[in-house]
Amino acid sequence: MKNFYISKSRRVRSTPFTKKIEEQGVKSYTVYNHMLLPTSFSNVDEEYLHLKKDVQLWDVSVQREIEISGKDAHQLVQLMTCRDLSKSKVGSCYYVPLIDSNGGMVNDPLIYKLEDNIWRVCIADSDVLLYAKGIAAGKKLNVKIFEANIDTLAVQGPKSFKLMEDVFGKEISKLKFFKYDFFKFKNNKFLISRSGFSKQGGYEIHVENVKAGLELYDYFFEEGKKYNIKPGAPNHAERIEGGLLSYGNDMLISDNPFECGFEKLVHLKDDVEFIGKDSLKKILKNGIKRKLMGVKINSDSLNLTSVDLLNKKKQIIGNLRSAAFSPTFKKIVGIAMINKEYCKNKEIFNINLNDNLIDGEVCKLPII
Amino acid sequence: MKNFYISKSRRVRSTPFTKKIEEQGVKSYTVYNHMLLPTSFSNVDEEYLHLKKDVQLWDVSVQREIEISGKDAHQLVQLMTCRDLSKSKVGSCYYVPLIDSNGGMVNDPLIYKLEDNIWRVCIADSDVLLYAKGIAAGKKLNVKIFEANIDTLAVQGPKSFKLMEDVFGKEISKLKFFKYDFFKFKNNKFLISRSGFSKQGGYEIHVENVKAGLELYDYFFEEGKKYNIKPGAPNHAERIEGGLLSYGNDMLISDNPFECGFEKLVHLKDDVEFIGKDSLKKILKNGIKRKLMGVKINSDSLNLTSVDLLNKKKQIIGNLRSAAFSPTFKKIVGIAMINKEYCKNKEIFNINLNDNLIDGEVCKLPII
Repeated sequence: MKNFYISKSRRVRSTPFTKKIEEQGVKSYTVYNHMLLPTSFSNVDEEYLHLKKDVQLWDVSVQREIEISGKDAHQLVQLMTCRDLSKSKVGSCYYVPLIDSNGGMVNDPLIYKLEDNIWRVCIADSDVLLYAKGIAAGKKLNVKIFEANIDTLAVQGPKSFKLMEDVFGKEISKLKFFKYDFFKFKNNKFLISRSGFSKQGGYEIHVENVKAGLELYDYFFEEGKKYNIKPGAPNHAERIEGGLLSYGNDMLISDNPFECGFEKLVHLKDDVEFIGKDSLKKILKNGIKRKLMGVKINSDSLNLTSVDLLNKKKQIIGNLRSAAFSPTFKKIVGIAMINKEYCKNKEIFNINLNDNLIDGEVCKLPII
Repeated sequence: MKNFYISKSRRVRSTPFTKKIEEQGVKSYTVYNHMLLPTSFSNVDEEYLHLKKDVQLWDVSVQREIEISGKDAHQLVQLMTCRDLSKSKVGSCYYVPLIDSNGGMVNDPLIYKLEDNIWRVCIADSDVLLYAKGIAAGKKLNVKIFEANIDTLAVQGPKSFKLMEDVFGKEISKLKFFKYDFFKFKNNKFLISRSGFSKQGGYEIHVENVKAGLELYDYFFEEGKKYNIKPGAPNHAERIEGGLLSYGNDMLISDNPFECGFEKLVHLKDDVEFIGKDSLKKILKNGIKRKLMGVKINSDSLNLTSVDLLNKKKQIIGNLRSAAFSPTFKKIVGIAMINKEYCKNKEIFNINLNDNLIDGEVCKLPII
């Protein structure tokens, strides 16, 4: 596949760490939430193997944080999601499908409850700020909504635990999955969550003080030498195998949470009000027609544009949403939206790649 | 400045014309509304000169079109903008600042009135779909809102008028600025507006039938040979000189329409209801503190990241939002947000470029 350059402008913002990662040899970017997201430093297959063995530091500042505060903050956050937040606790993060009035996926953020009426919505690639502002204006809610000046560093990989202990002290090991707390480095306090867009374990450090964040960044590469730390980025093959969905790739506003495998996060009882509830009830009543599933494809390269999955009769039975070469399986792994009757482990399908029919099989997510 | 590659994925969509422009030798992209926008085919200075002399065909499918229809469609569109739409007419396009409840800029689309209750909002780079959906859900409006399957080709440059006559017939010459109508090419009907993101004149063709659009695309390059047609893209230097603002570059949600020079598009009388009206009244009462102005900078290259403008005492008096080398002025032209007292033609300022203080002067928009 031919390579193309990316044009920079103020509209596609840099992050506080962009200068450093360019000195470290970043090769490519994508754009996410109107900001630069590094995608590769060397070779994605090597990066995949390194992430599963050692530890990487990622500039994921693109995960913008929308802060919603004020008397009606809880109400507004609940209005946007089908997940019941009535028992939510300060100190926890929640993965929540945000939906529109048709029950379509708007975003799939991790949300942080800071106080009863202060939330941070750590977003995937769509302008949740505008959705929240629209609802608040329409309902005349008493809230303040803004994109916080927070830039996130992710420390990911099996050696992230040791490294984080070295940097922030033993206490950090007690932090459980999807919990957050505040930790100090050189008298600067950071909100740190046990979370991240890989299945290798790790943390996300939410940097509010840029100067302190830059110091921390350098310190990680000093202190991390003994763990073979490298700069990195979310790795498609690793996150596909792990079943971590990517908004915009695997799901869009035309997909509902049932199709995306979020049925456990849909609360349809009368006690909670949210936008799109009636639509979700109707969708459920009519039956779910398709589902996101894992796929393995017998090829070692694949153009990532949307590709149809075909049955033996060459009828379309689904479409591929994400795909990447897996160094583990030595073939393409992917995520596809597949018609219900074909959502079976080991179901065989074909895809048409440059006029060649290539074999693939359906599998569960995560792909093991 | 170092070059970096762009990573493609389904999240950053291609357009129906991507394959063709890649065959035509596109070199670089940016991402706009989650989609690929070509930025250069050869050299931006050559493209600038060619655009001002001949004719270019641009793939600007990234200008996504949000269709709003239904009983409350007019109400919803009016709620989003401070411009009075009560006298709007079918057949016209309107440039409208969309604002939030604080009076901050959300987007600056061209909107098309198709029928009294069918509008298309042709957006700059922010998810207006979600803003509209939020307001509609909050106010329980009777509307249907979706991103239409429309991909736009822009024909821009002084020879666009002749070329369009050759392709669509004499009738198209009667189309006035910011009007639209339907025109036929080989039995396929296209909505065409006299509009576009250059000051060289031209049209935008709103393609609904992809197959017909691809045929038209090829036909333009056949028929346009005698006018020296080339594939192209919005040109920063040309649009800066023309005073055409770019959302995300020149203005953001932290800027209000008065600061962006849209005072004539702000309607504060009681007869029209829109979100943010009270905020705009307050802003006006407190006085406008800064304005977008043109600048000329005595340099032939400039990193585009946000740069402060300094006065003689080295105090910050503004900040640069867009900048590009102008083959006309043989220096950098730009757009900057400048404190009111410095918004004078020929006001001198400095900017700090790699520890060198460089001279510049303030000027009016458009830059002539």
